[in-house]
Amino acid sequence: MRQSGAVSLPEPSRRDTRLDTYVDAYAERTHGLTVSAVRALFAVANRPEVVSLAGGMPNIADLPRDALAKAVDRLIAERGTQAMQYGSGQGEPFMREKIVEVMAEEQIHAHADDIVVTCGSQQALDLVTRVFCDPGDVVLAEAPSYVGALGTFHAYQCQVVHVAMDDAGIDPVALRGALVSLKAAGKRVKFLYTIPNFQNPTGVTQTLERRHAIIEIAKEHDLLIIEDNPYGLLTLDAQPMPALRSLEDENVVYLGSFSKIFAPGFRVGWALAPHAVREKLVLTQEAATLCPPVFSQFAIATYLEEFDWRAQITTYRDMYRERRDAMLTGLREHMLEGTTWTHPEGGFFVWVTLPEGLDSQAMLPRAVTARVAYTPGTAFYADGMGSRNMRLSFCFPTPERIHEGTRRLGQVLEQELELHRTFGLGAEAARHHDLTAGPAPDIS
Amino acid sequence: MRQSGAVSLPEPSRRDTRLDTYVDAYAERTHGLTVSAVRALFAVANRPEVVSLAGGMPNIADLPRDALAKAVDRLIAERGTQAMQYGSGQGEPFMREKIVEVMAEEQIHAHADDIVVTCGSQQALDLVTRVFCDPGDVVLAEAPSYVGALGTFHAYQCQVVHVAMDDAGIDPVALRGALVSLKAAGKRVKFLYTIPNFQNPTGVTQTLERRHAIIEIAKEHDLLIIEDNPYGLLTLDAQPMPALRSLEDENVVYLGSFSKIFAPGFRVGWALAPHAVREKLVLTQEAATLCPPVFSQFAIATYLEEFDWRAQITTYRDMYRERRDAMLTGLREHMLEGTTWTHPEGGFFVWVTLPEGLDSQAMLPRAVTARVAYTPGTAFYADGMGSRNMRLSFCFPTPERIHEGTRRLGQVLEQELELHRTFGLGAEAARHHDLTAGPAPDIS
Repeated sequence: MRQSGAVSLPEPSRRDTRLDTYVDAYAERTHGLTVSAVRALFAVANRPEVVSLAGGMPNIADLPRDALAKAVDRLIAERGTQAMQYGSGQGEPFMREKIVEVMAEEQIHAHADDIVVTCGSQQALDLVTRVFCDPGDVVLAEAPSYVGALGTFHAYQCQVVHVAMDDAGIDPVALRGALVSLKAAGKRVKFLYTIPNFQNPTGVTQTLERRHAIIEIAKEHDLLIIEDNPYGLLTLDAQPMPALRSLEDENVVYLGSFSKIFAPGFRVGWALAPHAVREKLVLTQEAATLCPPVFSQFAIATYLEEFDWRAQITTYRDMYRERRDAMLTGLREHMLEGTTWTHPEGGFFVWVTLPEGLDSQAMLPRAVTARVAYTPGTAFYADGMGSRNMRLSFCFPTPERIHEGTRRLGQVLEQELELHRTFGLGAEAARHHDLTAGPAPDIS
Repeated sequence: MRQSGAVSLPEPSRRDTRLDTYVDAYAERTHGLTVSAVRALFAVANRPEVVSLAGGMPNIADLPRDALAKAVDRLIAERGTQAMQYGSGQGEPFMREKIVEVMAEEQIHAHADDIVVTCGSQQALDLVTRVFCDPGDVVLAEAPSYVGALGTFHAYQCQVVHVAMDDAGIDPVALRGALVSLKAAGKRVKFLYTIPNFQNPTGVTQTLERRHAIIEIAKEHDLLIIEDNPYGLLTLDAQPMPALRSLEDENVVYLGSFSKIFAPGFRVGWALAPHAVREKLVLTQEAATLCPPVFSQFAIATYLEEFDWRAQITTYRDMYRERRDAMLTGLREHMLEGTTWTHPEGGFFVWVTLPEGLDSQAMLPRAVTARVAYTPGTAFYADGMGSRNMRLSFCFPTPERIHEGTRRLGQVLEQELELHRTFGLGAEAARHHDLTAGPAPDIS
């Protein structure tokens, strides 16, 4: 029952012109934190008539809700006084034991004592950055990289240096080059942040060869690796690749999450870290929250204990495979010549590169008007790159909606190219003029 | 079935002598974060034969567990796909509406839009400090103040300046004096952190007169007040006092929590802040966790919607009143002459001042051996004061156990005083020698 009418866009927000009487009182790190006007746009993108290929929400409709309800019912009745009480700052011991089991699926051999449970893996990233980074420190990240990580690095006033990648992952030559030139420039590189599996936003997976090369370079340069792996078990074509942490346990802090293999609303993620780092993470967690969500840990441990969670992951894989295939088929059918895209073997995302002259950020309001949304590529770079890219996610809409979304997107691109051919670069400037309240790179 | 034998103490931890290969890589703020040796001691204090008057855990045994279990069962079955999904970075709208209702009990008139939900109110404190404080900034706090707040301020490299208080709360003369001399010294004071009701650790409540005086001074000096109020509704003798935020809405950030009026394991707290500050808090929350625990918010909102939560608070009050009375009776019966203590009208804590010559920190291992635990006063000062004080909590043990605890404590004090009289200050020095692995001021 799709509506055929166009969507009307919201007025630009006037928030930022308001007087903030606290502006002189904020910490250095708070300056520059501003509300992106793209939020209003995404509020429109969430209307049912718009096919949103923008978000990263998993589809959890297939969870066995009724059975889960009964299990949590018993949990509260039988163990409620523990599940609703304060817990350990490091996370509950039985939760950490279960996390060891989950990580074993990716060939990681770990001890529960080296795990810190966090409020989603976003908080693990926050704590790691807090423990390691002073203002001005350099963090290396893939070009492009996860917008939420860039936001955290920004919040701790780090300098993000992007490292080139191709369809096999980070380019080892570029990584070595960056390390050498940053060292020559007297910069302190604190770590490499990488998503080796089905990367957000590109969908690219590091090959095994690249993994070994990256670990080799890390050892040479005494470089800590932060391995962020929320999608690793959501392989759609093959078996999971060995995690970096499974190949090297000294220089790697591994971040995991239940958000994609179970459900995100419980906010349970974790960090697996070398012992000394783990100690600092626990103390930092206690200062930040006293303890991570206790009831959530009891609920997730109950799920892992009483349900066939491996079979649920297989269910998820089958569901996402169908969606990934719908997107790739739709792109083949509807994209302009000169447009290219990645072919992810898992995860949630496809990364599209537009023909020269098109600007995904400038185009977004018109796409939303045509009832399709995506995330502009600029969101995933700390340095303003990515204007010819867009991230499309296939996780949440149905296969039919995904296919329809690519059709609408194809039409938008054709109109854009037509506009570009007719008016050339002048039109580009005029469009930018429209966008004073347009998308900013802090979309989450 | 109490055992009569003494408890044997753990060996001092040797962790801190291990090599930390990352020590050069940590951020400035991470240096000085070390594991306190008191943890091992408190692990012993948690054994059933020890009466622990040390912790701050609420007693949630009286919650209607079976009915709650059924309500959460229905929640998952009927609204599970929302409750287990990602949510708003600011917190769910219905949760914030309910929080407005809870705050109205303390005469606070607020709008749901000005609330940020957090992972416990500890995280609210963390986010507020992150938004306002650069390294070296001054934070004012009562002398003594909540150990978890001191830990957070320390984590952001703030300088804590304590302001004298008496049994009516913060001394306005001392507050004004501190502001004047800090200004003269060129220091930036970012805010006053205060717990006006049943303060942790003293149990003292600010009188209404003092509240007005503090607000007056805050206006004069353009001072932001962080009002931390986890215990406000747990009044044991009278009606709740009006919150500072109910008397002044411009210069106050109010922190609330469900940990004491419902249950802590869901980890839901909040900050109510002036609009501009709230905006910064939401952006900071998104960088820290993406969103606060979603399922927890659904569960707590369900509780507030379907249960008589005001009656539950009355149940809690009756339970804690009995425990508070048991402690005050026990102290009257068993304390040494020259020992004084506060008489809290609510909350969880009594603050004891020992006769001159006694040292609560030095004495703790011997108290634990005598099967009673408390928190040494030094934990609640950033400046090494508090050695003659101890915080006793009456929240968790039964009234009988509390009474027995005070009896054991009285015996320990007598033995200490005897030792002190016999050996004088030499013995004091000898005891300190025992304590190289003893309690440190970061007990949580």
